[in-house]
Amino acid sequence: MSRRRSKAEQRPEGPPWRVLMHDVIFESDTPAGWAFDVGLLLAILTSVTLVAVETIPSVAQRNWLILGRFEWFLTILFTIEYGARLACAKHPLRYAVSFWGVIDLLSVLPTYVGFFFVESDANSFVILRSIRLLRAFRVLKLWRMMDDAEELSQAIWKARHKIIVFLIVVLVAVTISGTLMYFVENVIPRMTRGESPLDDSEFVASQFDSIPQAMYWAIVTMTTVGYGDIVPKTTIGKFISATLILLGYSLIIVPSGFVTAELTSRKSSEPDDETACPRCATVEHPGEAVYCYRCGERLAAEG
Amino acid sequence: MSRRRSKAEQRPEGPPWRVLMHDVIFESDTPAGWAFDVGLLLAILTSVTLVAVETIPSVAQRNWLILGRFEWFLTILFTIEYGARLACAKHPLRYAVSFWGVIDLLSVLPTYVGFFFVESDANSFVILRSIRLLRAFRVLKLWRMMDDAEELSQAIWKARHKIIVFLIVVLVAVTISGTLMYFVENVIPRMTRGESPLDDSEFVASQFDSIPQAMYWAIVTMTTVGYGDIVPKTTIGKFISATLILLGYSLIIVPSGFVTAELTSRKSSEPDDETACPRCATVEHPGEAVYCYRCGERLAAEG
Amino acid sequence: MSRRRSKAEQRPEGPPWRVLMHDVIFESDTPAGWAFDVGLLLAILTSVTLVAVETIPSVAQRNWLILGRFEWFLTILFTIEYGARLACAKHPLRYAVSFWGVIDLLSVLPTYVGFFFVESDANSFVILRSIRLLRAFRVLKLWRMMDDAEELSQAIWKARHKIIVFLIVVLVAVTISGTLMYFVENVIPRMTRGESPLDDSEFVASQFDSIPQAMYWAIVTMTTVGYGDIVPKTTIGKFISATLILLGYSLIIVPSGFVTAELTSRKSSEPDDETACPRCATVEHPGEAVYCYRCGERLAAEG
Amino acid sequence: MSRRRSKAEQRPEGPPWRVLMHDVIFESDTPAGWAFDVGLLLAILTSVTLVAVETIPSVAQRNWLILGRFEWFLTILFTIEYGARLACAKHPLRYAVSFWGVIDLLSVLPTYVGFFFVESDANSFVILRSIRLLRAFRVLKLWRMMDDAEELSQAIWKARHKIIVFLIVVLVAVTISGTLMYFVENVIPRMTRGESPLDDSEFVASQFDSIPQAMYWAIVTMTTVGYGDIVPKTTIGKFISATLILLGYSLIIVPSGFVTAELTSRKSSEPDDETACPRCATVEHPGEAVYCYRCGERLAAEG
Repeated sequence: MSRRRSKAEQRPEGPPWRVLMHDVIFESDTPAGWAFDVGLLLAILTSVTLVAVETIPSVAQRNWLILGRFEWFLTILFTIEYGARLACAKHPLRYAVSFWGVIDLLSVLPTYVGFFFVESDANSFVILRSIRLLRAFRVLKLWRMMDDAEELSQAIWKARHKIIVFLIVVLVAVTISGTLMYFVENVIPRMTRGESPLDDSEFVASQFDSIPQAMYWAIVTMTTVGYGDIVPKTTIGKFISATLILLGYSLIIVPSGFVTAELTSRKSSEPDDETACPRCATVEHPGEAVYCYRCGERLAAEG
Repeated sequence: MSRRRSKAEQRPEGPPWRVLMHDVIFESDTPAGWAFDVGLLLAILTSVTLVAVETIPSVAQRNWLILGRFEWFLTILFTIEYGARLACAKHPLRYAVSFWGVIDLLSVLPTYVGFFFVESDANSFVILRSIRLLRAFRVLKLWRMMDDAEELSQAIWKARHKIIVFLIVVLVAVTISGTLMYFVENVIPRMTRGESPLDDSEFVASQFDSIPQAMYWAIVTMTTVGYGDIVPKTTIGKFISATLILLGYSLIIVPSGFVTAELTSRKSSEPDDETACPRCATVEHPGEAVYCYRCGERLAAEG
Repeated sequence: MSRRRSKAEQRPEGPPWRVLMHDVIFESDTPAGWAFDVGLLLAILTSVTLVAVETIPSVAQRNWLILGRFEWFLTILFTIEYGARLACAKHPLRYAVSFWGVIDLLSVLPTYVGFFFVESDANSFVILRSIRLLRAFRVLKLWRMMDDAEELSQAIWKARHKIIVFLIVVLVAVTISGTLMYFVENVIPRMTRGESPLDDSEFVASQFDSIPQAMYWAIVTMTTVGYGDIVPKTTIGKFISATLILLGYSLIIVPSGFVTAELTSRKSSEPDDETACPRCATVEHPGEAVYCYRCGERLAAEG
Repeated sequence: MSRRRSKAEQRPEGPPWRVLMHDVIFESDTPAGWAFDVGLLLAILTSVTLVAVETIPSVAQRNWLILGRFEWFLTILFTIEYGARLACAKHPLRYAVSFWGVIDLLSVLPTYVGFFFVESDANSFVILRSIRLLRAFRVLKLWRMMDDAEELSQAIWKARHKIIVFLIVVLVAVTISGTLMYFVENVIPRMTRGESPLDDSEFVASQFDSIPQAMYWAIVTMTTVGYGDIVPKTTIGKFISATLILLGYSLIIVPSGFVTAELTSRKSSEPDDETACPRCATVEHPGEAVYCYRCGERLAAEG
């Protein structure tokens, strides 16, 4: 609701074409606005696919001409879109420095920058390539087109404390697990063999070759991703890691259940129906309301 | 409820054998209908097992005769079933073009097509094989036999917006993670070695050899599947992927908690008991309740 | 509550020592009963550890004497326990053929059977070994000692329909995904190379060498276990499996959310407090009850 | 609430500098207290990063001088912090033997111990190294700085019975699955080949080389980590493990849903608003409510 009101307030003044263009670009209620959204969606998806496909050597070498033309076509389209948004925004400057304004500019800039770059050597080629990869961030525009995006953003925003708590818990658990496993899988076996732990030249059997590596293992394991590129080899290491997995798994469902509980309680406190009070027209009564909480009038029976 | 009513309406007119057959095939309330369902269940499971087992070379070569006879027996059974459904459906044509009608036809067609196919060369053999694999879709018939299928379909259908939001969030996250990891694991190491990024002939150490590959890695990682066929090798790559895993994991529990919250709220809004208090409309009274537990009003007698 | 009553009913008649022994063995309210439970717990854990440790060749060869003696000590302990249970059960025969009676018998039988077995050749040794492994099922006795076991069993029992629906959904999804991936990863590449699909002698590159194998892959993937022993190699195979992972992941949270919703709704309908009605002494009022649902009396205010 | 009161009670008597120092160190409400917290946070993170980085051989050898100086600087900082806590705690001795007091002491001890240790041989070097690793436990101090830590600790503490039940269920399932898979993957293939199961000298093909190993596999699999270092090789082993994965997955969502249900019910039983209806005791009225939405009774005026 607050979103719709803010939309109405963002309508620009000025000539009618500006208002009309604003409605087409920023709203999706009208047929023209809907068509604009679908076209933009297709353009974004095509563009992101292009960026991805260009990095496959065999495809890129055979089709570089058509890929390049396609890219220019899309860049010009996005440039027109950027210009139109600038033209019909209520406060063009405020739009230009906003999050979405910067994303829209970054959508077109890489291709132009690449045009003026001389591909003299490998290094500048790589820099150019990196800039061109920025076009993949066009996919962020999808977020703006998603109706539930605001609701989801709010849910994440309201759950941010829980997420930070979750991250701190994971950080503490990962540091301690990682150090323990480094000790068990690396320090103890070396001690048995009588090696100096910092001697780089000798053969290192364990995959837990440093604490950062062991912490990487702990993160991969506790989130149940489990690549298997780093696994415990010693019996005691397997025993400890099995214990850590079970402990981590039992503890991790607590913060994750927290978020679900938060969402469930918010859900159930939302009014389900739109029954308005016949006397004072108040809406947003709790789901099972019988009397208006404002004036005490009995609400209309549903049956 | 709506399902039962629609069932009653779907009963065909005509001779009594048609009504009887309809009840046996389409309903499972009568003993005969239940026996038909169990028989069909066994036939489907046998048939799907046959399709699977035929693809194991050692088994298929030794038992092709018995497998083939079994297959013909099942095909004839399913043909009779298809014919019976056609015969006793209220609108045979409407059934034939419906989803389940097409599935039922596809259950029998492949064996007949294979019979008339001349296995002249490897190519036609493969086409034949592909058609025979279609018989695996008979497993879809299990769905029709599941009592809660409609409830589950509805739950998925009602949660479709949440699922689409979830997929868009994943798509955005996967594109950005994939591009970032491609840059870190592929472009930077090549730059250090002074290679041209598109030179196909040189040795490529990184498993992140293109953005689509990196996006495949991101999907496998963010859903915590974690095959381990593609893993970061560089220290910075491991650091970034550990961060991405943690971020992805914290963010992904939000939409997944959304679905649970949706289902929980739907569940709790279903009253178990239909007696409502005439004063305050509280439902969910204990079975033997006489007075409303909330406002003390006498409940309407049921008998 | 119903459990306690049934316990009281199961008390045997007869001499006082039988009643006393029954209370020690079957109840854990008295100090002696508690001590018996803790002793049994330790004996079970030691016994299961023994079974596990005996299978490590290096440990077993060096310590076979002490392991064997320990085993006999535990077997005699469990035999005494079995005898005592038989002696003090109200209906000894009914206990002997019950689930727990059979488990208790299987706990001691393997050691005795092994004693009378002549270890003449490798085959009988293996059979003996298999019988000895049965002792690992002693771990099931832990289940009986768990206070919440009955609640958990009931929750699983009540959610059995949801679990069956879940398994059917997974079965359908796994069959179709497996067949699809077998087609994409095995049939298409062979077709391109012009091979006969059933020719066993030629080199097979794909790990999807049959539909059962592909279904094993689908189960490992959809449950997010993701071993990585079977992974798609072709580009189209990776694309399809990424899509299947996402679809599977979005669909699988629906039945899993179902179970959580079921448990949440059961939880919230449980009466939280023990407020008894001052007039008719009814307990088990809903948590927020103000009036007795039986006689309409106002319940005692808490503050 | 109870936490704040206990804080007030923990304020030491004595000179004003002691009270002031106490507030800076133990509270974070004042600007000085907040600055102290942020400084401590940075010091902890730096220190833990140092411990981790020192274990990377290439980094440690090149930068041992600067790393050592940094370490001494942090150790002196933590020593001052430890002294200050001792000085301004209400009961210094009680603090010194408390959990956090021991952790604070262990934060500084390793560096001093390392200073007096003579690095004569590799063995003492390793012991020294192990002691230095203890500094990683400084990360536990983060827990104390987390506002929601107490709430989370309580949630875990209250869910401890569920977690123990969960662990017992997993223990039973893991023992039985492990024994079964050891039998299927190791004993049966050996039997077929006519080998003696305890003959260590012969080649062992299976990765399930003992029951503890098979139980490690079962834990890694049932928690969906799935490293892939141990996987079934035989057809029957794959079939059984796929079944176990599905069963385990269906059963494991029950205890995990338990925890979520527990948290959800606790959440929903916390009233947001304390105004209760005098007639029917309904709480959770909207903020501006005047009449009870359930029974129409006028709510008590608050002002």
